[in-house]
Amino acid sequence: MDAKKFLLNEKDIPQAWYNVIADMKTKPAPLIHPGTKQPLKAEDLYPIFSKAASEQEVNYTDRWIWIPEEVREMYRIWRPTPLVRAKGLERLLDTPAHIYFKNESVSPVGSHKLNSAIAQAYYCKQEGITNITTETGAGQWGAALSLAAKHFGLELAVYMVKISYEQKPYRRSIMQTYGAEVIASPSMSTKAGRKIITENPNHVGSLGTAISEAVELAMSTPNCKYVLGSVLNHVSLHQTVIGLEAEKQMEMAGEYPDLVIACFGGGSNFSGVAFPFLRHKLSGEKADTEFIAAEPSSCPKLTRGVFQYDFGDEAGYTPLIPMYTLGHNFRPANIHAGGLRYHGAGAIISQLKRDKLIDAVDIPQLESFKAATMFARSEGIIPAPESSHAIAATIREALKCKVEGKSKTILFNLSGHGLIDMTAYDRYFANDLANYEVSDEEIRANTAALEQIMK
Amino acid sequence: MDAKKFLLNEKDIPQAWYNVIADMKTKPAPLIHPGTKQPLKAEDLYPIFSKAASEQEVNYTDRWIWIPEEVREMYRIWRPTPLVRAKGLERLLDTPAHIYFKNESVSPVGSHKLNSAIAQAYYCKQEGITNITTETGAGQWGAALSLAAKHFGLELAVYMVKISYEQKPYRRSIMQTYGAEVIASPSMSTKAGRKIITENPNHVGSLGTAISEAVELAMSTPNCKYVLGSVLNHVSLHQTVIGLEAEKQMEMAGEYPDLVIACFGGGSNFSGVAFPFLRHKLSGEKADTEFIAAEPSSCPKLTRGVFQYDFGDEAGYTPLIPMYTLGHNFRPANIHAGGLRYHGAGAIISQLKRDKLIDAVDIPQLESFKAATMFARSEGIIPAPESSHAIAATIREALKCKVEGKSKTILFNLSGHGLIDMTAYDRYFANDLANYEVSDEEIRANTAALEQIMK
Repeated sequence: MDAKKFLLNEKDIPQAWYNVIADMKTKPAPLIHPGTKQPLKAEDLYPIFSKAASEQEVNYTDRWIWIPEEVREMYRIWRPTPLVRAKGLERLLDTPAHIYFKNESVSPVGSHKLNSAIAQAYYCKQEGITNITTETGAGQWGAALSLAAKHFGLELAVYMVKISYEQKPYRRSIMQTYGAEVIASPSMSTKAGRKIITENPNHVGSLGTAISEAVELAMSTPNCKYVLGSVLNHVSLHQTVIGLEAEKQMEMAGEYPDLVIACFGGGSNFSGVAFPFLRHKLSGEKADTEFIAAEPSSCPKLTRGVFQYDFGDEAGYTPLIPMYTLGHNFRPANIHAGGLRYHGAGAIISQLKRDKLIDAVDIPQLESFKAATMFARSEGIIPAPESSHAIAATIREALKCKVEGKSKTILFNLSGHGLIDMTAYDRYFANDLANYEVSDEEIRANTAALEQIMK
Repeated sequence: MDAKKFLLNEKDIPQAWYNVIADMKTKPAPLIHPGTKQPLKAEDLYPIFSKAASEQEVNYTDRWIWIPEEVREMYRIWRPTPLVRAKGLERLLDTPAHIYFKNESVSPVGSHKLNSAIAQAYYCKQEGITNITTETGAGQWGAALSLAAKHFGLELAVYMVKISYEQKPYRRSIMQTYGAEVIASPSMSTKAGRKIITENPNHVGSLGTAISEAVELAMSTPNCKYVLGSVLNHVSLHQTVIGLEAEKQMEMAGEYPDLVIACFGGGSNFSGVAFPFLRHKLSGEKADTEFIAAEPSSCPKLTRGVFQYDFGDEAGYTPLIPMYTLGHNFRPANIHAGGLRYHGAGAIISQLKRDKLIDAVDIPQLESFKAATMFARSEGIIPAPESSHAIAATIREALKCKVEGKSKTILFNLSGHGLIDMTAYDRYFANDLANYEVSDEEIRANTAALEQIMK
């Protein structure tokens, strides 16, 4: 613990989000309407999302999108966040690598999710919407949106993945303290939920299932919109404040990352930290920077999934997304990193992966907790189980540097703290956690039918 | 939520702690050796505490005490902390008062306790001590010391008040994640613990009991010292970084507090925020500033206790302290603000209260949770149950301003966040919490024998 921090002033909070699509030579394939099989226009998304979010979703041209002043004002509650040189971890690993992390855990809800929650709640409020609904995995997104909804005076219903609802009761309480309604998913409150429960009474839930329920509620409730915490382009857009700040801070540190690493569920924190640095790779200026998405080995869509059009949710309510996927019916194991239990990757990330502009690794659960404990003891911050995947990938790379005897500059995103996930740590210390590897057969079986979707 | 923050640079982290005793016209009466009944010298404390802490404990003359560079370096992990104008809360209350809070919840363990934990662990390390031991109520202090001990390579055993050990398992896990050993107190591992369990098998523990156990372990283990998180002069001293920073930040805001408010358990966070402002009252420069300690109505030592020499712990191992006390055998009710479940106040605070330089109010548990929920929904931060007492007292004062139609500037200390206390919020929302008032008879019965102690 050395606490070498690089701090910005409030005036350094970015004034615009960075839209990476504008700079991509190969654009992501369009979202497709599941009925007509035609590319979606912004208007097609209006029934589900706010208009502003719908337009951002299909904006392939504007490189910079202004952040509304009311949103920047809210960002000031905790932004800019610190960039920290992880000297304690470097010493523990005895590595020549320079390790930096962007500390997004300092937000009042403990994670980066507030960056997009505030923006989306703001747009809904502006458009006269009174009710919003969403899904949440571990509860990080739900907690963030609960705070944002309360601030803008919106009513919020959150479908929380059942296994997390049970494993992480504190996050449920946090949402309720902010005034949100929280429903364990799958639930009997929607057609999608009822169908799943009927077919499989012991279903522990997944992000895909919870999305189905939330979308159904939004579509069947007057003046209610759906708000998503990851996967989609506009969510990635809002998260770029992370990387834009980090860019300035790395400059203060006098370094530029050779490697940018983040954990990967739907892609929101990975996009947020990576895209602003990626723009210098796309421009050719920093062609050698590597980007690594760290996903759980129990839910390995980027490393072992197929690239296909697939639904974003279990019931098939969402548009079809061109994505690396394990199939929308994939049922992820009950790992504690609930925010990473999602079957697919967003359209931008999937295209970048196809074009070899970014890379991915998969991390077994036990390795993630080992890394988390090393980080807690050397840097003083107990990381979220999700973020611990990024730490594990960072440690792998730092140890490679040690073996090869060369130094690299590594930047990873600490997307959240784990103070509300201590049950998971308890189980780790009690040797009560498993790795949950996925077999090739399971992936093949889940993805075999996807080719038919577009036909 | 307006997020009007006042931020300092790292170079503004104070270089010295402020020792209020040097400026007090009436000094606190000395600590007394329970055997000899003579005033204690620093040497008398060496068997229990580090030498540096022992010397600070009886330092009545030096106004400023330098902060070691290694301690300031560790402070940089999260300091300086923000000062925030609570515009959201002001709006909710519709008060003309200006409300500011110092946000000590941003430390990696979520509270102010790290300010003294780092200093004390550092001194132990410097003096060649290998093992340390302490008590913890809600776990805030234990978590902070666990982090500090790990950093300085010390082995740590924490006696955690049994009711908190059961109510707050996450804090236990946090300590274990940092590598500390945690024992529920009263335990069978000490004479003091065994005696209490034998006489009262259902004893849920208290800070007084846990202190007895920790002190006993320190005195009976080679190269092991005891480290305390509140009550004593040197702990209050270390916490003054809070108020020293806040002073500069209030200046940035262009205001000076009419009222300084903090919750009160043993006095550490109250002293920390209050003493630097109190020095201008003692000098006559700001004679009208009021200081309010907010204690739980279930443990009202400052508002309803007696001023007597008493032990700091249940078993009677500590020096005799001149204090407002409910008697060292007082058994506080099972309120969720575990950090406030302590029978006495420190010597400095008690003297200041006698001299009417500070004031105190008592807050019923339900009022504290009502205030906490209002604060969470208007300022976005879920406060610790302890800190919620300061918020409740602040709300009382702000509403008084409204009734009287006059504005006051109120500064309170947000000593910690409540993200690890969500069970308490759950119970509050379920109408499952009580106020636990203490009767005059109970206080009389518990304090009647104290007059004999000095004889």
